[in-house]
Amino acid sequence: MHHFEELQLNFETYFNHRHFPENPSTLYDPAEYFIGLGGKRIRPVMCLMGNELFEDIHPDAYPLAAAVELFHNFTLIHDDIMDKAPLRRGKPTVHSKYGEPTALLGGDVMLVVAYDYLNRIDNRFLKKIVHLFNHTAMQVCEGQQLDMDFEKIADVSLEEYINMISLKTSVLLAASLRMGAMLGGAGEGNQLQLYEFGKKLGIAFQVQDDYLDAFGDPEKFGKQVGGDIMANKKTFLLIHAMETANPTQKAELERLLKTDESAKVEKVLNLFKECGIDAWARELKEKYIQEAAKHMEDIAVLSVRKKPLLELMHYLVQRDK
Amino acid sequence: MHHFEELQLNFETYFNHRHFPENPSTLYDPAEYFIGLGGKRIRPVMCLMGNELFEDIHPDAYPLAAAVELFHNFTLIHDDIMDKAPLRRGKPTVHSKYGEPTALLGGDVMLVVAYDYLNRIDNRFLKKIVHLFNHTAMQVCEGQQLDMDFEKIADVSLEEYINMISLKTSVLLAASLRMGAMLGGAGEGNQLQLYEFGKKLGIAFQVQDDYLDAFGDPEKFGKQVGGDIMANKKTFLLIHAMETANPTQKAELERLLKTDESAKVEKVLNLFKECGIDAWARELKEKYIQEAAKHMEDIAVLSVRKKPLLELMHYLVQRDK
Repeated sequence: MHHFEELQLNFETYFNHRHFPENPSTLYDPAEYFIGLGGKRIRPVMCLMGNELFEDIHPDAYPLAAAVELFHNFTLIHDDIMDKAPLRRGKPTVHSKYGEPTALLGGDVMLVVAYDYLNRIDNRFLKKIVHLFNHTAMQVCEGQQLDMDFEKIADVSLEEYINMISLKTSVLLAASLRMGAMLGGAGEGNQLQLYEFGKKLGIAFQVQDDYLDAFGDPEKFGKQVGGDIMANKKTFLLIHAMETANPTQKAELERLLKTDESAKVEKVLNLFKECGIDAWARELKEKYIQEAAKHMEDIAVLSVRKKPLLELMHYLVQRDK
Repeated sequence: MHHFEELQLNFETYFNHRHFPENPSTLYDPAEYFIGLGGKRIRPVMCLMGNELFEDIHPDAYPLAAAVELFHNFTLIHDDIMDKAPLRRGKPTVHSKYGEPTALLGGDVMLVVAYDYLNRIDNRFLKKIVHLFNHTAMQVCEGQQLDMDFEKIADVSLEEYINMISLKTSVLLAASLRMGAMLGGAGEGNQLQLYEFGKKLGIAFQVQDDYLDAFGDPEKFGKQVGGDIMANKKTFLLIHAMETANPTQKAELERLLKTDESAKVEKVLNLFKECGIDAWARELKEKYIQEAAKHMEDIAVLSVRKKPLLELMHYLVQRDK
């Protein structure tokens, strides 16, 4: 059994090389550039951990993990185009550095290379893993589309938002764990519990992300607090506030959403606090953590094997930056 | 053995249904819309024909053909974004009808569904076919990137242009035939000859496309003659003209490229004729047809099995619209 950090290191050793041909460099260098920006490699390591929950790591878990990481980066490159985001991980996004056409095509070719890593998996597992991978990839696209759709809709319910977040973020975490578990020889029942663990963990993670953006300690958070509020982004907090505010508070919130005044963040935060949104969000996160933990409990393997994943869960949802 | 038209009908029967889920319709309806615009379905039928050159059609040739057609449509949707093209097959492109973000994401999800069709192929063939599919997909992206790169370069040699066309257009025709042949149980040597047949045919097709845009009969051509000239598009004709024109002709050609004068098309066409570009293009096409035919000759199957593909070749390169 290995801890997250050890597997992270193992994965980096496997993954840290050029993934694309040299030429044409106008296509492949931008793709390499983006991969080189790094990140915590959470999803690929989850493939390894899902495997090791049941059995020693199968050699095919590494190409699987690489496929998942490349897929994730493909979605980021394309999302950044759609969101017109100038920066990712503190560096210029692919489209802002190399232009939109190249970013579009570089993302495309990254998805193809992801499938080429998948194609290295043993025939015994290949079809089932690719099936889940494809299903998940479609869901991630659906989540991104809903996210864009929601920007244009005034009223998004909490249920709709959770569904969107689940598609956009959670299912890839869940599928990473489950595809790893498939290579680890897990039975169907255990696979499903692990998948649900990943989904709940993903939602808890997003609740916390939204929470920290509003209520995080600016010193530890590492980016400007209130960014979501400034951008009028629909978050767990804003959606619940709109649902629970009294008419006066709601009117004030709606007014603030239309302004760019300097005290906007402060005023919205005060309204959130008046409505008890901060405490509600902490409880909501806790609820999803408990649900995730319950699914982990119901997985029929020795408790000792579960330790690294439970550690990861607490690391992911108790981080303050 | 079946003719192209029969297989085209068989493919349409298999392919003519909804390929995407109903919801979210904001994502999937645009993808369906584009598939519904039709086209001649040349590539998927080539999968079937590549199979039938060697053996009765394997049931998996249909999902393979569907994957190829979806892949081709994915490239068209994304190319149209990159090229800012308003129309495709006389109808609005996806991005001009639904916006760029949806076109980008709709293309992405189409590629995923293409891989899901591939995943239906029997394990005996799966890895080899997916490997060629991936390799080809990367080449098609490379071709599109080079095409965009060439727009910014004054001097593109004929060799570079042929390489770009080969990547952007020919390899998918070649791979469609070869993947079909794999399902038909063809040996490696026959597969390679068929692949080269497809590549040469693709180049002949592009030479003709460029030729007809300049010298086609407007009545039969169905679109405005001289479109490439108006757009200063690098074509077989323009590249060879720049290579063979005398200094006076070259200066005049370069002057014309910078203008939008009403007689531009007529003047460029006259220059092309002075340089003998029309006869040269007809000979070049003929050269590639002969090379393709030679590769077909070298395939070790009964001549009678080759008839439909040779018919298709003549249909594709002798069309006048």
